[in-house]
Order: sequence, then C-alpha cells, then structure tokens
Amino acid sequence: MEKPKAVLFDAYGTLFDVYSVGLLAEQLFPGHGAALSVLWRDKQIEYTRLVTTSNHGAHYKPFWELTRAGLRYACRKLGVELTPAHEERLMNQYRHLSAFPENREVLQALKDKRVVTGILSNGDPEMLGIAVRSAGLEELLDHVLSVDTVRKYKTHPDAYQLGPDATGLAPSQILFVSCNGWDALAATWFGYRTLWVNRYQLPFEELGTEPTRTGSTLRDVLSFF
Amino acid sequence: MEKPKAVLFDAYGTLFDVYSVGLLAEQLFPGHGAALSVLWRDKQIEYTRLVTTSNHGAHYKPFWELTRAGLRYACRKLGVELTPAHEERLMNQYRHLSAFPENREVLQALKDKRVVTGILSNGDPEMLGIAVRSAGLEELLDHVLSVDTVRKYKTHPDAYQLGPDATGLAPSQILFVSCNGWDALAATWFGYRTLWVNRYQLPFEELGTEPTRTGSTLRDVLSFF
Repeated sequence: MEKPKAVLFDAYGTLFDVYSVGLLAEQLFPGHGAALSVLWRDKQIEYTRLVTTSNHGAHYKPFWELTRAGLRYACRKLGVELTPAHEERLMNQYRHLSAFPENREVLQALKDKRVVTGILSNGDPEMLGIAVRSAGLEELLDHVLSVDTVRKYKTHPDAYQLGPDATGLAPSQILFVSCNGWDALAATWFGYRTLWVNRYQLPFEELGTEPTRTGSTLRDVLSFF
Repeated sequence: MEKPKAVLFDAYGTLFDVYSVGLLAEQLFPGHGAALSVLWRDKQIEYTRLVTTSNHGAHYKPFWELTRAGLRYACRKLGVELTPAHEERLMNQYRHLSAFPENREVLQALKDKRVVTGILSNGDPEMLGIAVRSAGLEELLDHVLSVDTVRKYKTHPDAYQLGPDATGLAPSQILFVSCNGWDALAATWFGYRTLWVNRYQLPFEELGTEPTRTGSTLRDVLSFF
C-alpha cells in the first residue's frame, strides 16, 4: 500500500499529556489528584459531545471554556472546594501540559522524509498555539488545525474534514494518529488511515471497527514509512 | 405559567434503575460489581454519542447492541473475564432492570389529572416493551417513543423532536423528566420544560443552563400540576 503523504496528530492526550495536571491537583487536593485529573478529562470530552450533538451545535463553546466547565464539575462531584486561585492555577497548568518525550524525534523524522505534518485538535487556536510553542514544535508542523473553525468537535465529520481541506489530500492518503480510542475509531470511520497509540494499555472500543494499526508510542508512526 | 399538557419520561436511569445490575455483577465478579455497573453505563452512553456524531449517524446500532458493547468494554477494562454465560446473564438482567418504586403512583396521579404521559428513550422498542410490561406500566403510558425511529440518540434534536411529533404539542407545553443531568440539560436546550430528578446528589452540568426545576424523586413531577 502507498505510504501516507501526511500525518495528522491529535493534540490532547496524544502530543500533550492531559494527566500531567494530576501532580498539581494532588498538591491542591491531597488524595484527590488522580481522580480529579481523570474526571476532569472525561467531563471535558463529554462536554465537547454535548455541545456538538445538541441543537445542531448552537451551544458550541471553545475548548478552553469547556475545559474550565469540566474542572468545575469535577471538583463539585469530588466535593473539593475550587477557589478562584485554585482554578486559575489548574487552568494555567492545563495551558502548559507536558509534551510526550518522543514528539520531537518523530516529527523530525517525518520532516526528514518530506512528509506533511500537522495537528488536528479539539483545542482552540490560542491553547494550541501556546502548547505548540511551549513544546518547541512550531518548525516541525506544517498545519495546526483547530475544530474551532467549524465549531463542531470531533467526532463530527466536519471536524475531521479539516485535514483533507488543509492538505488537499484524500483521507486515505493521510495517517491520523491518536492516543484516544474514540478518536482513532471515528477517524477510521471517516476514512483516514489510523494509528491508535495505546499508551495506557486500554481495550479498544467494542464497536466492530479497528484502527489501521495499534502502537504503544508515537514512534510507531514511523512503521508506516 | 400554564401547566404542562404532557409529561415525557426518560427511561434508563429515570424509570428503571440502571445500577440494579450491580448486584448480579458483584456475584459474578466479586469486588468489581459497583465499578462494573458504573463503567458499563458510562460506556453505553458514550457509544450512543459516538455513533450519533460520527459520519452523520452511519454507524448507528440499536441500544441493545451498544449496551452489549459497553459491557464487553467494561469487563476488558476491569480485567475480568466475561464468559458467554456471564454475558447472557448480565444482558438478561439489563432487560429486566428494577423499576423505581414511585413510578406507578406518579403515572397514576398524572392519568387522574388527564395529563398525557409517555416515555422518550434511547432504548430500542423491544427493550422498552419488555421493561414497561415487566413494571406493569402499559396502561399508564400513552406513548412509548424510541429514538430507534430516527436512528439518532439523545441529545440529537431529532430524538427530542419525537415528543412534539407524537403529542402534537409544542416543546414548551411538555414537561420532560430525566435523572440524567446531560439529558435534562439538552432537553432544556431543545425547548422542553424540564425536571431533573437528582437521585444521586450530583452537581448539575456546568454549561450555563439550568433545568426548569430540580427534584429528588419522580414525585416532584406533581409539583408542576
């Protein structure tokens, strides 16, 4: 099979570690850090789905706002008090999530092979810009695509369509990479070739479709070339 | 404000106790029953959203199949072995979930007041039929509406539109009742008057919209009349 002509990466969970907020959360709310970071993430993603599906997207809000809403919900559910100062510290931490260590070498290897690279993310442009600059990845990415342009979150097809539109390639010529099983699944449904990077040894979604390949780190992207 | 002319109830979680499978789950997988019943439910709902949002609903499957897929995922995630016999027992239990004890008296009181009553559920018609008959509610419900007709799950507006279509009433003339916060939220966005029955003392969704009223049991429906 022909090699992909472009690689698009999911950002949150794939290039940037959404659970890296757990350490600060544990300092602020001892005994609740891990639970908070999981619940926060789950709620943030749930909210992207609710605003996309309900009322034809009329209740869309940028990812930054849904991230804040998810944090507030998670703290209330866990029964911990989120002061305004705590909220700002945690949100600021979210703006500067840790990048996974292999990002740079994988992106550099793709550039060396003259493969088009990019991000296709739920994040809004400002969040993505800060995260990409903090990780020093600007020079290695040809495209930074935010669903904010179409005001529909993944897994809506309008969100995935940003990839073909930006690159001028067919979905089958693009490798889409995500550590989120639901994202790898829906990208496969959309028509991309897909790599699910299963960082956390999770089962894949049980909906009868498998990603093109499964790996354990971003380095597995290079197996396509 | 004018009294509602009809009351539509969500089924799973509202009339029927989705966590009542936890007891059997605990017998089959000691120490994992509660976690399994929560994870199963969460995954089932997540799958309704994935198939509704992705590829314009091309991957729709009936609720029964998504329920089974959610069970399989939950067991794999928890690392417990789901034999075919276990799966059939748990699925059969799901078909016969416990009904909440106040259902009958509330529905009877609404009938006595000549209010139109119904269910508007993600469940497919066969599941709903069995659940309604098992609970002896057939005579008390004017409508049993399944999203299977439109092949889109709540919170898609096509699903909520089933209510006005079946009753001939405007959304604002209908009271929609759900114990699921996301359902009460999206029904409010759709235009229904809403009662969120907060059975589990949870926070409401943090998306800037509140249900018309919040209660703690289905009896609070009667406060609208």
